[in-house]
Amino acid sequence: MTKEPIFDVAQLAHFEIYSPKLEESVEFFSEILGMEEVERQGKSVYMRAYEDHYHNTLIITENDEAGLGHMALRARSPQALERRVAAIEEAGYGIGWIDGDIGHGPAYQFRTPDGHKVEIFWEVEYYQASDVEKTALLNRPQRRPNRGVPVRRLDHINLLAKETNKNVEFLEAVLGFNVRERILNEDNSDIAAWLSVTNLAHDIAIMGDALGEEGRLHHICYWYGYPQHLSDVADLLIDRGFEIEVSPIKHGVSQASCMYVFEPGGNRVELFGDSGYLIFDPDWKTVEWKGEDTEQAILWHGTKLPEDFFSYGTPVRSKETVENS
Amino acid sequence: MTKEPIFDVAQLAHFEIYSPKLEESVEFFSEILGMEEVERQGKSVYMRAYEDHYHNTLIITENDEAGLGHMALRARSPQALERRVAAIEEAGYGIGWIDGDIGHGPAYQFRTPDGHKVEIFWEVEYYQASDVEKTALLNRPQRRPNRGVPVRRLDHINLLAKETNKNVEFLEAVLGFNVRERILNEDNSDIAAWLSVTNLAHDIAIMGDALGEEGRLHHICYWYGYPQHLSDVADLLIDRGFEIEVSPIKHGVSQASCMYVFEPGGNRVELFGDSGYLIFDPDWKTVEWKGEDTEQAILWHGTKLPEDFFSYGTPVRSKETVENS
Amino acid sequence: MTKEPIFDVAQLAHFEIYSPKLEESVEFFSEILGMEEVERQGKSVYMRAYEDHYHNTLIITENDEAGLGHMALRARSPQALERRVAAIEEAGYGIGWIDGDIGHGPAYQFRTPDGHKVEIFWEVEYYQASDVEKTALLNRPQRRPNRGVPVRRLDHINLLAKETNKNVEFLEAVLGFNVRERILNEDNSDIAAWLSVTNLAHDIAIMGDALGEEGRLHHICYWYGYPQHLSDVADLLIDRGFEIEVSPIKHGVSQASCMYVFEPGGNRVELFGDSGYLIFDPDWKTVEWKGEDTEQAILWHGTKLPEDFFSYGTPVRSKETVENS
Amino acid sequence: MTKEPIFDVAQLAHFEIYSPKLEESVEFFSEILGMEEVERQGKSVYMRAYEDHYHNTLIITENDEAGLGHMALRARSPQALERRVAAIEEAGYGIGWIDGDIGHGPAYQFRTPDGHKVEIFWEVEYYQASDVEKTALLNRPQRRPNRGVPVRRLDHINLLAKETNKNVEFLEAVLGFNVRERILNEDNSDIAAWLSVTNLAHDIAIMGDALGEEGRLHHICYWYGYPQHLSDVADLLIDRGFEIEVSPIKHGVSQASCMYVFEPGGNRVELFGDSGYLIFDPDWKTVEWKGEDTEQAILWHGTKLPEDFFSYGTPVRSKETVENS
Repeated sequence: MTKEPIFDVAQLAHFEIYSPKLEESVEFFSEILGMEEVERQGKSVYMRAYEDHYHNTLIITENDEAGLGHMALRARSPQALERRVAAIEEAGYGIGWIDGDIGHGPAYQFRTPDGHKVEIFWEVEYYQASDVEKTALLNRPQRRPNRGVPVRRLDHINLLAKETNKNVEFLEAVLGFNVRERILNEDNSDIAAWLSVTNLAHDIAIMGDALGEEGRLHHICYWYGYPQHLSDVADLLIDRGFEIEVSPIKHGVSQASCMYVFEPGGNRVELFGDSGYLIFDPDWKTVEWKGEDTEQAILWHGTKLPEDFFSYGTPVRSKETVENS
Repeated sequence: MTKEPIFDVAQLAHFEIYSPKLEESVEFFSEILGMEEVERQGKSVYMRAYEDHYHNTLIITENDEAGLGHMALRARSPQALERRVAAIEEAGYGIGWIDGDIGHGPAYQFRTPDGHKVEIFWEVEYYQASDVEKTALLNRPQRRPNRGVPVRRLDHINLLAKETNKNVEFLEAVLGFNVRERILNEDNSDIAAWLSVTNLAHDIAIMGDALGEEGRLHHICYWYGYPQHLSDVADLLIDRGFEIEVSPIKHGVSQASCMYVFEPGGNRVELFGDSGYLIFDPDWKTVEWKGEDTEQAILWHGTKLPEDFFSYGTPVRSKETVENS
Repeated sequence: MTKEPIFDVAQLAHFEIYSPKLEESVEFFSEILGMEEVERQGKSVYMRAYEDHYHNTLIITENDEAGLGHMALRARSPQALERRVAAIEEAGYGIGWIDGDIGHGPAYQFRTPDGHKVEIFWEVEYYQASDVEKTALLNRPQRRPNRGVPVRRLDHINLLAKETNKNVEFLEAVLGFNVRERILNEDNSDIAAWLSVTNLAHDIAIMGDALGEEGRLHHICYWYGYPQHLSDVADLLIDRGFEIEVSPIKHGVSQASCMYVFEPGGNRVELFGDSGYLIFDPDWKTVEWKGEDTEQAILWHGTKLPEDFFSYGTPVRSKETVENS
Repeated sequence: MTKEPIFDVAQLAHFEIYSPKLEESVEFFSEILGMEEVERQGKSVYMRAYEDHYHNTLIITENDEAGLGHMALRARSPQALERRVAAIEEAGYGIGWIDGDIGHGPAYQFRTPDGHKVEIFWEVEYYQASDVEKTALLNRPQRRPNRGVPVRRLDHINLLAKETNKNVEFLEAVLGFNVRERILNEDNSDIAAWLSVTNLAHDIAIMGDALGEEGRLHHICYWYGYPQHLSDVADLLIDRGFEIEVSPIKHGVSQASCMYVFEPGGNRVELFGDSGYLIFDPDWKTVEWKGEDTEQAILWHGTKLPEDFFSYGTPVRSKETVENS
């Protein structure tokens, strides 16, 4: 009889990014993506999208270099949290418990094999809308903002990794993620993999770092749900001096309508224009793209990607830097 | 040989509405529809949408009652203006010349047979974007605002009339409008008619006033160009206390995706979510809907219209008021 | 410590509807919704949408009256299937095992408290596209059809019930469904409830049968993912003699863009134009709408529902029939 | 006093393309773009889109090489036709009268300075829908087809020219076209120009032929009106072996959402996903893009164009062919 799946991780709950230009980064997420600044503490600003139910989903922390501070997972229950902590410790990747942070309770911190910092927790604080921000749409925590082209909620994260497979296997074996799609080298190692614990095609993606660096961030992603908003926000971005890396396209992997833009701190941000396809099959067979199909996997509707799409990540490293190090 | 058409009127150029709640009306067009206040003079506020090329397309004037102040047509040339003024005077509907107003030069004022005030002019002032509002999209006079769900440009006006046919015939014979579609009574008189001098299905519509009043306004209309924006703006409207009269639907006449909302002053405003169909045939045969098809003519995708859709206009009159007068 | 949730049901896998007009019903799903007839056996036709991964998701069976044949759930694992069968038997609603059907293996049949027939299984047959129907989009089981406005996949089912709460509690306690949203009477009994085991706002909805009947079907639903397709398919429906019950609207509950149409056999079919909002919070608090908010819960963008929206179901019963019975 | 404009040309009425693969070309327009084959004669097939009001808008003629057969303009009146014929003859570009063709009456044929064949006529035959193809949407000549992703109507044509300016000036001076936008070299000669007699940003575009050839076709364009259909049709194209040259993008010039695809005969076909912006100002100042802005003029949402975008035209000529000739 097949081993039963692990259901202990419920979702990607938030991420922290580093920015060398804190105020400009906050302004980008606030004025262009319509997000709300919920709180500030020290060098960190806590933000959320208007359909994010929790207190915050994005933390921007001032730092010399851009990059990933940490990402956070929410367990499915207090028991599930305990089980996963035990599994992480057993796998040897644990750091230890923290008392909590703004917006959530005790969290266990650990690292992916590649070194990305992660935390997992159960207790969470919900966003409470002020009277003026309340909506008659009761399943929405807050009315739609009339600022920018407002994103609705956190969607996923994409991590660069020196050793793709090792990280993918960690997410599968220790945290219960399912590999939904992958792009394979000829030797069947992963060029990239898309994993989820939800019905989404991915909550986390892992892509090989073309520079061979460790622990870098490829992008974070927020969700619109309608392709039109990609075109709308592009108008805002172009005329306000932001850099669009990839204009609205349609992915093969995930089938999502999307675009990529750089926030002022240098981190890549993806915007999702629809839900892509959803996976309900509990016995889903991983979709395997071969290396030569990489371009079509990333771009179903097929204009060229920029050359450094697979090598640009944060913290920013150039080929030269890497070679000299 | 057929008489050649008149090409002297180029477009509907602006409209003035009356509002008993000036500041609230301005806030609606500014904060929800993303329009810009360009100037104020006396009791009037001059506004425009971000793809309106002229100085202004909407004037809101404080007044005890809501309603139409006037609407303005732009002639195709100085000579065309002279020819139309002569024709209007000959028809006996002229008022006389004014020196101009904010945003345009000398204008000839007149009334429709039903009494709606109209002006026609040639000289116009163009909007000049400040450096910060300039856009790299050179055919657009101003970058997309990041406020509300911004409308792009003025689209059309719909007038209620006591005697539909008389007004339609005036627009045809004296101003050169073409009747693109009409809804007919059994005696072939017009219940409503849609007329244009452009490739749009209508620049002006005339509908029979169900209360038998004269000179009232049914609605003014601004244009989005994408149906998604109707849904977006509905979100803003509902949670900010505005009244949507008709949720996003699709018209039969004009084929436009649209919705109706009341601005705080009480005037009905239509929002257009696409261009509908365009008419390029120079010998277009008027599309005739029979009275029993009125509902489908107005609502191709067919939910019920509110009962007072054909009787509510501005200034507001009720059946009772009319009967007692 | 909180009791841990049940994860044993993975998804709604298919449904069978009865039709007194088999061929017309098949033609509707095939020519208008672009679905494929995969197999026929006896009086039943097996169909699927182009992003349905299983052999079939819709069975249409010829029958004197319209209505629900059965609906099917897929368990998450063989062990999960056994656990649920034990729970159903213990609850006293079981019927018994069948060997399987076209497209799936052994299934356990049972009834909801209201009498709707349900089956649950683990083994499933996947659809295998012929060479010509294969697509380069590897996560899609079949290329997009160029017929009709093709739906992408099964979305959910909505059941009418005499006793709403009893059925809701059965789905929760015995099958592990979560109540995502509900509309409550003043006595806190359910007017309607939306439940899911997935991240969707509902896989199954239960609504009070306004006629007090048992075991009827309100509607089945297929998914487009883009609101534009609702408008597109409406064009096809209107000019091919099909009856649209509710034109494209936006739900409050689920936030979905949707429409309702009757297939020729008389069953109501909903079409979903987007994914609505998704629920990732493992501790989701049921959204509660009060009875007076029912209209806004169903229609966020608010045109009136037809009067018999809550009383029309299949098999069709009229008030009179019920009173005379 | 300014000279008054010429209003004698109403619209682009149809075009004829040459195809070395007649049946495959017909199948592309029929099965993918949902167009109808209305008639065949000799080596020519006459087709139309479902919102084209005339008998046909596309003629595909079998020929050794792809390319433009001719394009046709409709005059605004019989008198207008006579005036334009006189002007063309005076300019020295006339060929002579033909009795007419399938779908239209007597036409005067001429050539652009670059040699593209053009005809202009007044009398036209309207498409008459069979009973089964009639629609309740009375302004639409035919119900929406349920085949492919059906285009709605002819939009525009884009011609390559050896000497851009000479052709632009001919269209302006002799036919009354208005230059709406242009891209200029440093010496102010045109790299490309977009001209119209309608409210569209262009009915005809002229672009410099990068190979220095004469009389070639860059593309013909049909119109959807909704961006979603570009994504829909891309799905069909990719999995049916057609070549997409440029995936869905947004133009700067015209602001249109669009894509480019090659029909099997080798001619480039553009598909328009919205109406772009419309021009109502009778005194429109030509929008001027400088040469260094060409990329942004063509691609507002900015992914790279293929290298041969400005050199590929039909009949197909390569750099080598040109150099050897």
